[in-house]
Amino acid sequence: FTSKLPAVGTTIFTTMSQLAAQTGAINLSQGFPDFDGPEALREALARHVAAGHNQYAPMTGLPALREQIALKIERLYGRKVSADSEVTVTPGATQAIFCAIQALIHPGDEAIVFDPCYDSYDPSVTLAGGHCVHVPLAAGNFAIDWQRLEAALSPRTRLIILNTPHNPSGALIGRDELDRLAALIRDRDIHIVSDEVYEHLVFDGRQHASVLAHDELYARAFVVSSFGKTYHVTGWKTGYVVAPPALSAELRKVHQYVSFCGVTPLQYALADFMAACPEHLAELPAFYQAKRDLFCDLLAGSRFTFTRTPGTYFQLADYSAIRPDLDDVAMAQWLTREHGVAAIPVSVFSERPDPAQRLVRFCFAKREDTLRQAAEKLSAI
Amino acid sequence: FTSKLPAVGTTIFTTMSQLAAQTGAINLSQGFPDFDGPEALREALARHVAAGHNQYAPMTGLPALREQIALKIERLYGRKVSADSEVTVTPGATQAIFCAIQALIHPGDEAIVFDPCYDSYDPSVTLAGGHCVHVPLAAGNFAIDWQRLEAALSPRTRLIILNTPHNPSGALIGRDELDRLAALIRDRDIHIVSDEVYEHLVFDGRQHASVLAHDELYARAFVVSSFGKTYHVTGWKTGYVVAPPALSAELRKVHQYVSFCGVTPLQYALADFMAACPEHLAELPAFYQAKRDLFCDLLAGSRFTFTRTPGTYFQLADYSAIRPDLDDVAMAQWLTREHGVAAIPVSVFSERPDPAQRLVRFCFAKREDTLRQAAEKLSAI
Ligand SMILES: CSCCC(=O)C(=O)O
Ligand SMILES: CSCCC(=O)C(=O)O
Repeated sequence: FTSKLPAVGTTIFTTMSQLAAQTGAINLSQGFPDFDGPEALREALARHVAAGHNQYAPMTGLPALREQIALKIERLYGRKVSADSEVTVTPGATQAIFCAIQALIHPGDEAIVFDPCYDSYDPSVTLAGGHCVHVPLAAGNFAIDWQRLEAALSPRTRLIILNTPHNPSGALIGRDELDRLAALIRDRDIHIVSDEVYEHLVFDGRQHASVLAHDELYARAFVVSSFGKTYHVTGWKTGYVVAPPALSAELRKVHQYVSFCGVTPLQYALADFMAACPEHLAELPAFYQAKRDLFCDLLAGSRFTFTRTPGTYFQLADYSAIRPDLDDVAMAQWLTREHGVAAIPVSVFSERPDPAQRLVRFCFAKREDTLRQAAEKLSAI
Repeated sequence: FTSKLPAVGTTIFTTMSQLAAQTGAINLSQGFPDFDGPEALREALARHVAAGHNQYAPMTGLPALREQIALKIERLYGRKVSADSEVTVTPGATQAIFCAIQALIHPGDEAIVFDPCYDSYDPSVTLAGGHCVHVPLAAGNFAIDWQRLEAALSPRTRLIILNTPHNPSGALIGRDELDRLAALIRDRDIHIVSDEVYEHLVFDGRQHASVLAHDELYARAFVVSSFGKTYHVTGWKTGYVVAPPALSAELRKVHQYVSFCGVTPLQYALADFMAACPEHLAELPAFYQAKRDLFCDLLAGSRFTFTRTPGTYFQLADYSAIRPDLDDVAMAQWLTREHGVAAIPVSVFSERPDPAQRLVRFCFAKREDTLRQAAEKLSAI
């Protein structure tokens, strides 16, 4: 039996969450809230399950939910997309990304990812028979390094995977960078997968520059988002892809054989909640910014150094002043075992991590008491 | 943009369900119940959603659910499987099949499927870079044609996909056939994906011969099942794969990047219900046999000819006496438009269908009144 993914082990998220559970550490590693989704959303689910909405959804997603997604996109990004031919609901954003990659990548094709990057991109490209070219983001601010990007382009490049707001750093891609990217690929046969699952988690009055708001890029893009992150229900595993009709048609060919459709009552509940409570989205930045600020304020007296994250629910922290002798994998384990706080080492998101880098990632999608307890432990180190 | 699946259109299930909705026809096409899952199951879901079980499940599935699956397998098939290393919960059985194929098939490999077969197998093999060899089942009884199977084996054959009980025919593979298959592949490097999503729908006192009960085959198999079919909740899209530890490890590498995990509160609810209500499984054959018999009794006076299906919730019917001039795709449309009952044409499940075949498939997972109304319309033709 020859492995299709010989290099792949268990994801860091599973490894660290398990270690946190084993050791009783506060789990700031894997990204998920320790509070619950809105009560109205959960009640809507119970209502639809009781009402008998428990059989297959349409392959492309419940029309009412696709309609709500289209309305949101028009409201936030000024683009009118067709709920019918441009929006596809998937069982999670990870699967949306997987299917977009499967639809695009032919054997021998190259895909460019920016390191550090979410750990599913590379194996998904590999399973499609393609090859991932890893382009490091600039050290320090995690911005696109244009020289490196241009050097990485080849006649085989078919795809560039963007992620903004960026996991793990929280960095945002600016509108000017989208323009520059559009110009760079204008005369090339390159498509975009834009992972925007943290689109609503953007702080300090900044704006998320979505590929959906960029005509030229959108024309060749699959834009992915997630309900789990937006509605505090990561375990509902429901996401979506928006793409021009011709691209959506290809995506759907893959999706219909990977999963056929998402979970029906969840889609009803999400459609209801989006219609009833559009203000949830507007309130999210302040909600998460308060958590970020609480966590960062509490850590201000610690020996960790950091700049407050501009987006996502992740905060990077440099531990050079604490244990410069440990690489970040060892540091994450040490923090978990010895200090009762689990974190994610940043190096695992890169093909060739900088061995001098001393960064761990904390998830601050947590209740105030959790953040206080964790910060107390971290400040005592 | 070069399509990865140029030959693929919209699945017949979407096409026929849409046509049924447009025309107001009774939908006996796509396979799903028009009644609801057990109340206790739906209440368990509401309870777990309210209790806050809404964040990521473990990648391999909720331990309590994997435990219940392992218990069931021991009870029904006499095999002790490890819930930890042999059972993986997936977002639907379609995805379980997709991931098993992705884990097994390398570019250039061949997979054997028996025609007619479920429509996802071939595109899933294609997306993995493999090639599907279609071996027709015997005309009439849909049994394995051993001569054709042996002729189809090649040094490139890496996988044989079984489906028992068989969609669309309901045919069962016998224990003796499993033995023969095991002998046939004994000295070859061939694995098995066994799609057993209708494992509990077997009639007239027959036994389902699971690959799980066959030591030699199980050693190289991925066995797939579905909660949707078993608990009348196809829209919950939750299934599982059972495979020996080394195979499960490879499957999980793929699964963790295709979806990462299934929906958490559904897994809690299913685990509770399986523990509280094991008799559900024992009652299923009689429950569906009664539906089959009602439908077949009512059709006995019609001009359709059929033998009662031994398994699944599908009944094939020959319409040669009604419209021999129509191929089955045209017949399914004619039945839907002109006679108000939607069905599935059987030819779409085959690479090279017999042009003389005059079979449509009806789904009898319907309430008594639905079956009566449909049979009345079909008997009037
Ligand atoms: C699917 S588990 C990973 C969750 C996540 O996105 C993260 O922690 O980065
Ligand atoms: C996923 S839709 C198809 C349902 C089904 O298995 C069938 O109708 O054969």
